[in-house]
Amino acid sequence: MTSVLPPALEAGRELVEPALRKAVARLDADTRQVCEYHFGWSNADGSPAGGGGKALRPALVLLSGRVVAGDPDDVLAPAAAVELVHNFSLLHDDVMDGDTERRHRPTAWTVFGRSPALLAGDALLALSTDVLLDPATEYAAAAVRALSGATRELIAGQAADLDFEERTEVALAECLRMVHDKTASLLGCSTALGACFLGAPGETVRRLHAFGTELGMAFQLVDDLLGLWGDPQVTGKPVLADLRARKKSVPVVHALVSGGAAARRLRELYAQPEALTEDQLEEAAEAVRESGSEEWTRAECARRLDRAHQQLPEGDPDAVRSLTELAEFIVRRKH
Amino acid sequence: MTSVLPPALEAGRELVEPALRKAVARLDADTRQVCEYHFGWSNADGSPAGGGGKALRPALVLLSGRVVAGDPDDVLAPAAAVELVHNFSLLHDDVMDGDTERRHRPTAWTVFGRSPALLAGDALLALSTDVLLDPATEYAAAAVRALSGATRELIAGQAADLDFEERTEVALAECLRMVHDKTASLLGCSTALGACFLGAPGETVRRLHAFGTELGMAFQLVDDLLGLWGDPQVTGKPVLADLRARKKSVPVVHALVSGGAAARRLRELYAQPEALTEDQLEEAAEAVRESGSEEWTRAECARRLDRAHQQLPEGDPDAVRSLTELAEFIVRRKH
Repeated sequence: MTSVLPPALEAGRELVEPALRKAVARLDADTRQVCEYHFGWSNADGSPAGGGGKALRPALVLLSGRVVAGDPDDVLAPAAAVELVHNFSLLHDDVMDGDTERRHRPTAWTVFGRSPALLAGDALLALSTDVLLDPATEYAAAAVRALSGATRELIAGQAADLDFEERTEVALAECLRMVHDKTASLLGCSTALGACFLGAPGETVRRLHAFGTELGMAFQLVDDLLGLWGDPQVTGKPVLADLRARKKSVPVVHALVSGGAAARRLRELYAQPEALTEDQLEEAAEAVRESGSEEWTRAECARRLDRAHQQLPEGDPDAVRSLTELAEFIVRRKH
Repeated sequence: MTSVLPPALEAGRELVEPALRKAVARLDADTRQVCEYHFGWSNADGSPAGGGGKALRPALVLLSGRVVAGDPDDVLAPAAAVELVHNFSLLHDDVMDGDTERRHRPTAWTVFGRSPALLAGDALLALSTDVLLDPATEYAAAAVRALSGATRELIAGQAADLDFEERTEVALAECLRMVHDKTASLLGCSTALGACFLGAPGETVRRLHAFGTELGMAFQLVDDLLGLWGDPQVTGKPVLADLRARKKSVPVVHALVSGGAAARRLRELYAQPEALTEDQLEEAAEAVRESGSEEWTRAECARRLDRAHQQLPEGDPDAVRSLTELAEFIVRRKH
């Protein structure tokens, strides 16, 4: 792994940020302040800040447009729109999950309150369609519908994730479905949306969508592994963070349903009313390893990446190479 | 006031409900259950229920289409879309405001939890654009943008309303702006959207929008008066409900800024840390009356209704008459 971001990611962020800022500037002052803080453009007091997320989804939209020889300027609208939807979901999920930190800063709801953060999320979702239809180009309506469908899946995924917290039994297939809906769906949509917005042939759009969806699955599986064994110095999260919160991530669910002695021990630990001690956390992590679930997750991740590559369409060779690079970066990342 | 609903309202609900049900059926099972409960179509256990709201906004869309001689079937999509946006805002507002009852039933969040209710609201907002673009007719994109703009104003209005709760000083102009954003904007949009969706001339759409916006202001002013002096048997709310909750509704803000002895007493009561006693509630209501604020609100309501009527465009006489009837009903209603 290199700590240098792929050029497509850097370029994407630089291109899309002005469009995002312009969209957010349409909001009323209160809601705008919350959004600008959340995006990392300003501090809590409104003073400028230089932060911001990776903007992975806009980069995928721009590459998707480049694959069909589109000009980046012609797909800025869908690139901004997917980032608005992504950030709508982050703002709402942070409230629902009670998460207090994101991108090494206090989450918006801890700074401004729950209701203003929820309203800011609502506003970003409403803005996303506005941005796609301003002006309404020939294929904009198809793009809005694709994005709206992915948004519904995102919501279904978050609903399933919350539901899993309440349940003791979660099947692996259900868990993978949740990952598809919560993460892979919007990544698949992003990777198709640039081409879709430019009216590319259906087969190209379909292949890009399949590439992005498989990549999205791999992305989340890496995230799940980092949630267990990521370096706290790099991830900014405590050691074994997901076990501590007893998350039902893919490797954990794989271990829980694996049926051996390790699975039984992991079930006991997950059912324990008290917080897990550091020793018990190590024990739980060991149970996931012993069940073969770390290995299975890594292998599944490689399979998904492989299937993603098989779906890559013909198109601009530079853009196709950049998509490949971005996929490799996503799977090898340490945070 | 007659307790009989205007025919346009009855007809609107009957026409639009199937389209709404079809849209909601696209959602994942968990989110769908919350929405069907919220709409009054099912009970908490999923068994069928016969309820439902007034569906005022869809009725306005249908009339707006009829004004320009459109077939009701051709504007079912925008009629369903405005109702989806309205119910998105109800689901979210009930969580934010902590309201436990709506339409004489426990609110969705009290039955299913806050997060599922928030996700259900998110899903309805996402569905609203989907419905408008399925299929994407010639003027659908313009309709989506009009609805998205009204949604942003709705969000700004709710943000302002929440902000007012924290403040002691609210100017009357700010309060009227909040009412415009939170209520009148979506009613104005609804009253223009049928015509807009059918590609009616700009001047007709503009007049319908102005009519609906003024009507929306009147609608909320009536609501504010009912929140103070509505009959609990009819409204389903306790006597002097809005004073009890110390809401900064238009008549209250008008009284607070009126500057006389009654205004000073009302300020004292609103600043009191303890809950207001029944005697103090009567005293507060009397202060609003003494400040001339009940009378001013009633007069303002009549002015708005008058201005609405002046904006009515030429068009199908039956439809224009029905809009007039609906406006009169809204202003004379007792709940």
